[in-house]
Amino acid sequence: MIYLDYNATTPLDPEVEKSIKDALSVWGNPSSKYPAGCTAKALIAEARKRIGQCINALEEEIIFTSGGTESNNWVIHSSIDYFNSCKAVGDNNNCNIKPHVITTSVEHDSILGPLNYLKRKGDIELTIVNIDEQTRNILPSDIAVAIKSNTVLISVMMANNETGTVLPVQEIGKAIKKKEQELGCKIFFHTDAAQAIGKIAVDAKQLNVDFLTIVGHKFYGPRNGALYIKHLESEKNLYTPLLLGGGQENGWRSGTENTPMIVGLGVAAQLIHKNLEKYQQNMLDTRNYLKLKLAEAFGKGVVFNYLPEVCLPNTCNFSILGDGLEGYKILEKAKGFCCSTGSACHSDKCEPSKILLNFHINPAVAGNALRISTGRTTSKKEIDDVVAELVEIRQSLCNDCS
Amino acid sequence: MIYLDYNATTPLDPEVEKSIKDALSVWGNPSSKYPAGCTAKALIAEARKRIGQCINALEEEIIFTSGGTESNNWVIHSSIDYFNSCKAVGDNNNCNIKPHVITTSVEHDSILGPLNYLKRKGDIELTIVNIDEQTRNILPSDIAVAIKSNTVLISVMMANNETGTVLPVQEIGKAIKKKEQELGCKIFFHTDAAQAIGKIAVDAKQLNVDFLTIVGHKFYGPRNGALYIKHLESEKNLYTPLLLGGGQENGWRSGTENTPMIVGLGVAAQLIHKNLEKYQQNMLDTRNYLKLKLAEAFGKGVVFNYLPEVCLPNTCNFSILGDGLEGYKILEKAKGFCCSTGSACHSDKCEPSKILLNFHINPAVAGNALRISTGRTTSKKEIDDVVAELVEIRQSLCNDCS
Repeated sequence: MIYLDYNATTPLDPEVEKSIKDALSVWGNPSSKYPAGCTAKALIAEARKRIGQCINALEEEIIFTSGGTESNNWVIHSSIDYFNSCKAVGDNNNCNIKPHVITTSVEHDSILGPLNYLKRKGDIELTIVNIDEQTRNILPSDIAVAIKSNTVLISVMMANNETGTVLPVQEIGKAIKKKEQELGCKIFFHTDAAQAIGKIAVDAKQLNVDFLTIVGHKFYGPRNGALYIKHLESEKNLYTPLLLGGGQENGWRSGTENTPMIVGLGVAAQLIHKNLEKYQQNMLDTRNYLKLKLAEAFGKGVVFNYLPEVCLPNTCNFSILGDGLEGYKILEKAKGFCCSTGSACHSDKCEPSKILLNFHINPAVAGNALRISTGRTTSKKEIDDVVAELVEIRQSLCNDCS
Repeated sequence: MIYLDYNATTPLDPEVEKSIKDALSVWGNPSSKYPAGCTAKALIAEARKRIGQCINALEEEIIFTSGGTESNNWVIHSSIDYFNSCKAVGDNNNCNIKPHVITTSVEHDSILGPLNYLKRKGDIELTIVNIDEQTRNILPSDIAVAIKSNTVLISVMMANNETGTVLPVQEIGKAIKKKEQELGCKIFFHTDAAQAIGKIAVDAKQLNVDFLTIVGHKFYGPRNGALYIKHLESEKNLYTPLLLGGGQENGWRSGTENTPMIVGLGVAAQLIHKNLEKYQQNMLDTRNYLKLKLAEAFGKGVVFNYLPEVCLPNTCNFSILGDGLEGYKILEKAKGFCCSTGSACHSDKCEPSKILLNFHINPAVAGNALRISTGRTTSKKEIDDVVAELVEIRQSLCNDCS
């Protein structure tokens, strides 16, 4: 079966897989001082360095987590706790004031989920900035205008998993810094780079973010993750960890380190640092080839739900138009390939994806959407096979199609 | 080097290691409906069943986490959130009342750390019950007497990592249930079974706990964990997850599942379900042999800081008496074996372990303490070698010893 759902998850790169297998034997507790512990500790330090190199960060700015969901929850927890601590010591004038968070309507559930929960509980004020209808992207000015004196956190993803849209994070960062200087208060800026790393260049310094989420299984790494925290060591008093305990990760993430997974994450990051251009080129070539072939096969019967000029190189969200051609119906028929109708997290549901609607995709078109995301090894032959099968499926599903 | 620090961490059992290696190729996203996802989902279901069998729980009462620290933080977060939600809807009479938590002075940092933090923040009332000086254990009546109308959580570990003391969790549970009925309010009862599983029988139903923490790397499994939540499905409205997002684990722990680690955890649990008695016997035989040999070698110059009648089968905490014989100094000299002077989490510090002091071990004796914890494959030959080396080290360190 041809796998074309690389935005949902990726296989382990063979080098990553080997490194994990090898590191399974390095089972000493990294907190122990004897050799078994020291070997593990050294491997973890090496992995941290590799993650740093991959996103242009210092190794001491990287903490390992269990994955993107934890990293995103960490950022929300820590930022809100920071605001409330400042309030407790009287830095904020009004004790009744709540922390204000700004995010977008197209974030992953691990951002929107906890934020909506905290809003329902009455713990935060929340502004969800919508996608601009004309540009089909977030406008930095829409973020800037939402900033208030009690804004403590702004979270904007680097790239969306469903449409592949790359959001203007760097420009948003500039707009925030300007506002921050005007208001004279700390606003944490976070980007969830889950879908960006391994597909486009990610430079934490250039983006000027305070936090950046790293997710291994989106870039041929294991199912753990990391979090970039700007100047962690010099500003450590700002942050409260999400998980407290034995004080691992220099106190920022307690829990005995998952050495083999951390080693694998480091190797996956190192591969990107070395080979990003090569990986990108194949994703782009096959994605563009797919678009061409779909257009050839379906003509005006296919629409593309992505913006080529601001899209990840590997993502092709499209809809084959016609009654009975909903994405999930097409996938039920597909025997030779697999892809997604929306975010993998929602695959039990068959409603038009809310994220696509938030990107102003017409509901009828969104219901028919398929998301194909290509990978490092996707070939044009595979694309030919998939398009041929789509043609057959369309014929069998659609009675009134010519 | 002879490894005798099995309470800090354990190697992977060869069967566990093989299962992880095999499952590294099962990289589909378990939320995806196509075969790659379904295969992963089925493996996770099987692992859940195995964990359930190991602790006499239903599979739907088990959620997978990144480890014991996350499980313990989950319990604290969720219990306090439950109390505050009840307050919000008016179940508690007084809006200014804070949730009250009871724990013991010998818990792991992943319990004491977050609780002390929440207390400092003013979010909870905290009662830390001390070890009874006479019995050197927690008295169930001391827990019961600490219960108040605003008590929402009581957390008592099953067995202590440093002394090996098995705490009377079942009796404490009975005392709590009695008080709960008198007061007519819900009190969550949690036990951290990190050190118990794989060493003594752990039966969640018999213990009558609401939550039980499971930590893979303490029982020859991987560096992830799980949490038992009693009647999760029927009482799901009671709980708020720690990590919110894509709704994995039936909503109770978001984050794409770490399939290979979960598979490994399941195999590790299955091995215990099958072989616990055999494992116990070797740990006990070698621990008791160690005690005998230490007594033979050092006579009145060695004291044992554990209570044989209520101790894990594998743990021998002892002190070789004399000036200059602090545990860390002995370990600095040890070339042929490794063990611990206290909890692995604290191994950078050389102060007498607070936990040992809390167990009423004399400070001078506690400073000299070594913790040897035996494993499934520890042999008497290894014990002989270790004791012989300890005799040599004592001679070299202690000028005034005979």
